[in-house]
Amino acid sequence: MKKNNLQSLFNPQSIAIVGASNKKGKVGTVIAENISKLGYKGRIYYVNPSYKILKLKRCYESVSAINKKIDLIVISVPAKFVLDVVKDSMNLSRNFVIISAGFSETGEDGAQREKQLHDLAKKHGLNILGPNCLGFIVPKNKLNASFAGGMPAAGNIAFASQSGALAVALMDKAKGEQIGFSHVISIGNQMQLDESELLEYLAGDRETKVIGMYLEGIKNGEKFLEIAKRVSKIKPIVILKAGKTEKAQLAISSHTGALAGSDEIVDVAFEKSGVIRADDLEEFFDLLTLISFTDAPKNNKVAVVTNAGGAGVLTTDAFKGRKITLAEISTKIKNQIKMKLPSEASVENPIDLLGDADEARYSDALKALGLTAGTIISVLTPQQQTPVEKIANVIIENKAKNVTTAAIFIGGDRVFSSINLLKKSDVPNFSDPQRAITALDKYYRWEVVRKQKEIAVKSFKSAGRKKNVAEIVAKAKKENRSALLFAEAAEIAKQYGIDSGDFWTIAKGGTNLPAGGSEISKFPLVAKIDSDTVLHKSDRQGVILSIKNQAELSDAIAKLQQNFPGEQILIQPMQSKQIELILGIKVDEIFGPVIVYGLGGIYTEVFKMVNFMLAPMSLVEIKNHILESKIGFLFQGVRGQAVYDLEEFASILQGLMALATENRQLAGLDINPLFIYNDGRKASAVDIKIII
Amino acid sequence: MKKNNLQSLFNPQSIAIVGASNKKGKVGTVIAENISKLGYKGRIYYVNPSYKILKLKRCYESVSAINKKIDLIVISVPAKFVLDVVKDSMNLSRNFVIISAGFSETGEDGAQREKQLHDLAKKHGLNILGPNCLGFIVPKNKLNASFAGGMPAAGNIAFASQSGALAVALMDKAKGEQIGFSHVISIGNQMQLDESELLEYLAGDRETKVIGMYLEGIKNGEKFLEIAKRVSKIKPIVILKAGKTEKAQLAISSHTGALAGSDEIVDVAFEKSGVIRADDLEEFFDLLTLISFTDAPKNNKVAVVTNAGGAGVLTTDAFKGRKITLAEISTKIKNQIKMKLPSEASVENPIDLLGDADEARYSDALKALGLTAGTIISVLTPQQQTPVEKIANVIIENKAKNVTTAAIFIGGDRVFSSINLLKKSDVPNFSDPQRAITALDKYYRWEVVRKQKEIAVKSFKSAGRKKNVAEIVAKAKKENRSALLFAEAAEIAKQYGIDSGDFWTIAKGGTNLPAGGSEISKFPLVAKIDSDTVLHKSDRQGVILSIKNQAELSDAIAKLQQNFPGEQILIQPMQSKQIELILGIKVDEIFGPVIVYGLGGIYTEVFKMVNFMLAPMSLVEIKNHILESKIGFLFQGVRGQAVYDLEEFASILQGLMALATENRQLAGLDINPLFIYNDGRKASAVDIKIII
Repeated sequence: MKKNNLQSLFNPQSIAIVGASNKKGKVGTVIAENISKLGYKGRIYYVNPSYKILKLKRCYESVSAINKKIDLIVISVPAKFVLDVVKDSMNLSRNFVIISAGFSETGEDGAQREKQLHDLAKKHGLNILGPNCLGFIVPKNKLNASFAGGMPAAGNIAFASQSGALAVALMDKAKGEQIGFSHVISIGNQMQLDESELLEYLAGDRETKVIGMYLEGIKNGEKFLEIAKRVSKIKPIVILKAGKTEKAQLAISSHTGALAGSDEIVDVAFEKSGVIRADDLEEFFDLLTLISFTDAPKNNKVAVVTNAGGAGVLTTDAFKGRKITLAEISTKIKNQIKMKLPSEASVENPIDLLGDADEARYSDALKALGLTAGTIISVLTPQQQTPVEKIANVIIENKAKNVTTAAIFIGGDRVFSSINLLKKSDVPNFSDPQRAITALDKYYRWEVVRKQKEIAVKSFKSAGRKKNVAEIVAKAKKENRSALLFAEAAEIAKQYGIDSGDFWTIAKGGTNLPAGGSEISKFPLVAKIDSDTVLHKSDRQGVILSIKNQAELSDAIAKLQQNFPGEQILIQPMQSKQIELILGIKVDEIFGPVIVYGLGGIYTEVFKMVNFMLAPMSLVEIKNHILESKIGFLFQGVRGQAVYDLEEFASILQGLMALATENRQLAGLDINPLFIYNDGRKASAVDIKIII
Repeated sequence: MKKNNLQSLFNPQSIAIVGASNKKGKVGTVIAENISKLGYKGRIYYVNPSYKILKLKRCYESVSAINKKIDLIVISVPAKFVLDVVKDSMNLSRNFVIISAGFSETGEDGAQREKQLHDLAKKHGLNILGPNCLGFIVPKNKLNASFAGGMPAAGNIAFASQSGALAVALMDKAKGEQIGFSHVISIGNQMQLDESELLEYLAGDRETKVIGMYLEGIKNGEKFLEIAKRVSKIKPIVILKAGKTEKAQLAISSHTGALAGSDEIVDVAFEKSGVIRADDLEEFFDLLTLISFTDAPKNNKVAVVTNAGGAGVLTTDAFKGRKITLAEISTKIKNQIKMKLPSEASVENPIDLLGDADEARYSDALKALGLTAGTIISVLTPQQQTPVEKIANVIIENKAKNVTTAAIFIGGDRVFSSINLLKKSDVPNFSDPQRAITALDKYYRWEVVRKQKEIAVKSFKSAGRKKNVAEIVAKAKKENRSALLFAEAAEIAKQYGIDSGDFWTIAKGGTNLPAGGSEISKFPLVAKIDSDTVLHKSDRQGVILSIKNQAELSDAIAKLQQNFPGEQILIQPMQSKQIELILGIKVDEIFGPVIVYGLGGIYTEVFKMVNFMLAPMSLVEIKNHILESKIGFLFQGVRGQAVYDLEEFASILQGLMALATENRQLAGLDINPLFIYNDGRKASAVDIKIII
């Protein structure tokens, strides 16, 4: 249903242009020209009360005056008139592109206008692209419903951009590159058609092989995660996500009013959903070109042939830290190649065909390599005697199905036309080994994720414990507390399988040992303040360690009560420390609750050995995450150390994830420290803070 | 003297071409053509016994037959004849370019030939470029003494390459880029004229503003360090050093027989000597272009103007982790700009001139910014109404002295010619914000190092202690040991100011407590095997901890002697652990002794919190190194922890550096652990291993 809607938005049989004009320099003029003069075959209606006739055609004073069903309304009138135009049109059309600026990107008034528009869209089931956008272009339909000039080549790249200017720049850049677009979409303020809706539509579009997006903010993180994960199983999504630095985030909020999420969490979200993240504009372009031209590497093995030893070494360097790797060439194939080459040539991968290599040497090597690697890269520098074009043709002739073929022709004038030849035959060329390997590696990683079987995540929902948490939180809120007391937090944690060991509390103002005080015999003990207001209790002498007997315990309690009158006191057995971890829930503005875990202790912030997870995850996925995390070494045995209990730790993280997912009202949680052991003792959450 | 020599090599008045030919496809033919037909004005002699006349000129049967002083002999004959040619010529010339391959890059025989050639060069003070090189080109002299085709534009870039093919590719790439070369030098096997000799010569060459090198190996690390440090105070050296990965190192050794050093140590060496390291080919080219066009940023402040918000955000992102940073623009200047711009424009840096910005807006902003930042970058995307060329001209007109001016024009056809315009006026353009900021940041870092005052390093040499070390080592060698005993190592360390606390030893086979055994009263004690052969003593139960009294001590000694008969035993007070460090000397094949220091303990390899230093360094430099190192936090106070003693630790490292520098015969050293404290106790080297 939704797909059909966008289908008619992007492939309309009829368009009304509201604000169409013939005054030079006006946006409405440019849009009317773009739609009418670049080959669009559908019906066009001009709407502008100032004209009776425009471009020799009737010009309507309003959309309602047209009085026919219309597939798409493109609006370019001042912001204050937009709402009325939509209201006037919505009986005739459900699809709108609102070019007009002056909405949430401009402050209070604009935000108010945008809200009214959004409410209207929701109420009446309208599809609105924009406001504050450039429009869109679908080259296949010869439809340029935007105020960017020209008509890019039709092709298999769908590009949606939160920056219209970058879309224009990329279309210009694409011209000489033998690539084309299925869609170029300026998404503006993402008011209602946001990145997720577009992903969903483009996933089902047959012309689109790869979806590229430039995003500054993500509107709805959880919706995005769910849809992106599904879509990236079908086709690659490449996103250039800007706003990595604090300064950049400033620039964004003054730019389109988008809310930028913390960059590390964006990384985690993209990885989880199989989205390929481009680190910069060039990489973004490289990836779109690569994917447009060729299928993903079938395996991680890469064979390289080169006519320049130095370029071969640089290519080898570029594999550092990658999942794709130089293939081991079998002795048989090596011998086959060796027979055809001069004795000085090297048949170790990268295969050095020597500086005077002609097309025959390339051909021999490529033929011999055959299907030996998932990717074959031909490197070339234009030496005096190098027949560049002939070699390009040999590379094209030897393209094998099931092998990703790429080239690295390094140079200027002498290689330009041959690079073009390669691209015309869908062989991507990279001007630098590093760029080639970066793009191929990311494409391969996507392929790996795509092939991964989805593991069903067992639902952990339990109405009972959820209700129990709600009650504890409600009570604390009623008492005007912003955090839970330890006993409350421990009770919650326990229901999610996180144990915090024995403890006893002495109520506020109480002077006696707690009920069950006689049980307190597990000396040494620790006594500490249990309060929602006293932060950094260690620094403020709110913790007394190594209490050895009953007398010391009484002293400790008295002292704490004197220093912190009216606060509750917590008593725990003092545990011997082995490894301290830190665990937590951080509620991200974009993606919701994030599970954080890593090495604890006083240097946590210095070491930064911390990883992040987003729900949902199966137990198997959590285990893999732990093993690949910065503290994975603890569970694999390093330097002859006994391994820590992976099952136990994974189940704690699984519990924490369930806790975070079920109880969305919580503002944050810290377990610091969680003690874990490799000697059979059980893990224990020594301190738990839940912010409400 | 040396400079003069290379002066006449690269600027010869006369050249003899040995192996000159007119057979098509022969290297000697190409070289003869390149030298004679591209405008070289000096005297040319052809030498080849097969011809009497060549190219209408007399052809000599040997160089000696010419019987005149000749500035340069270019040799392109089979390897086996080269030595004889040099011998026959060296009365008439001291300068040789040996194009011929078939030397150390081809195995045993070739290496032998190269050695003979090298010995000859040393004996007679010859300058030999090559063998196994492409030759060189000096465009200013219209001299192409190579077998690469054509004549690049004359300019201020000197490029020396260990890969001839890359030199050719870069010259081709340079053609369209408005840059030119003072020298292009193929250095081949670096037999005698190596990277350091060339640096020294190019430092004094007036035409050369920037020295670029592609290197796979560095011939003599310590010589390189000393010369590069000196030269980079005069002009920037940009090096693309290949061979980062193990695989790459394989490719190198099969390629030119160069010896690749460990990559991390190369980083340290380059940083120390002020060399700018390019991470890949494109960055290398970007840096050469940038430096060729413009002077280094005078300060770390950068102002950015843009007509595309998105491109502004991407530029801001690119500053992450850089030393250069977005400038704070003063309110006065902001207001000045604001007055000239539409109200929606943003005057926060990056200054957003909006999509419809014309040349006037760029001009207003650039004029108002004036000298407010060390670098001003103009970002542009070619939107429908953007007057690209006019804006390029405005950028050129507003270039200010003392401001580094750069551009990021993103696009294709619509920006090409304007980018060319910029380059013709020495304004570098980058196609991507990331590339721009990377290059500018590295250039700025060079400028910072260049300006740094050299701190004299106090000589630590002491003949006495050096002799003492030599005696200890000689004794151990005589006893066929490959490592020193603890007492020996401790004695050496002590002379360099590194204390290892109290200890006592029980000689091999001895059953009694040592002399002075009555002093052993600092219980608890540790007893361990002190042996040059027992490695991993903890794992092999060669260490007994927490010895509480005399009886336990006797038991421990007996047990160790039983398990390790005939080994010496070491007894130390057991110190309470606070922070464990690891220190060491690693002898690098290229750069000699490297000081290693970092966090110790069982997870040393996991945390990898280790840094490297190369001698010489002053105490001040060592202190700064520590503060900026991965364990710098210990000496700066983190999380309210008392700071550790920087003076003490720096003096230990200084001692270790003196030890490494004075005693070059040592093969390695490990102090593991060094205990340091923040409570007044003295640092102590608990275990010291010296490999001889």
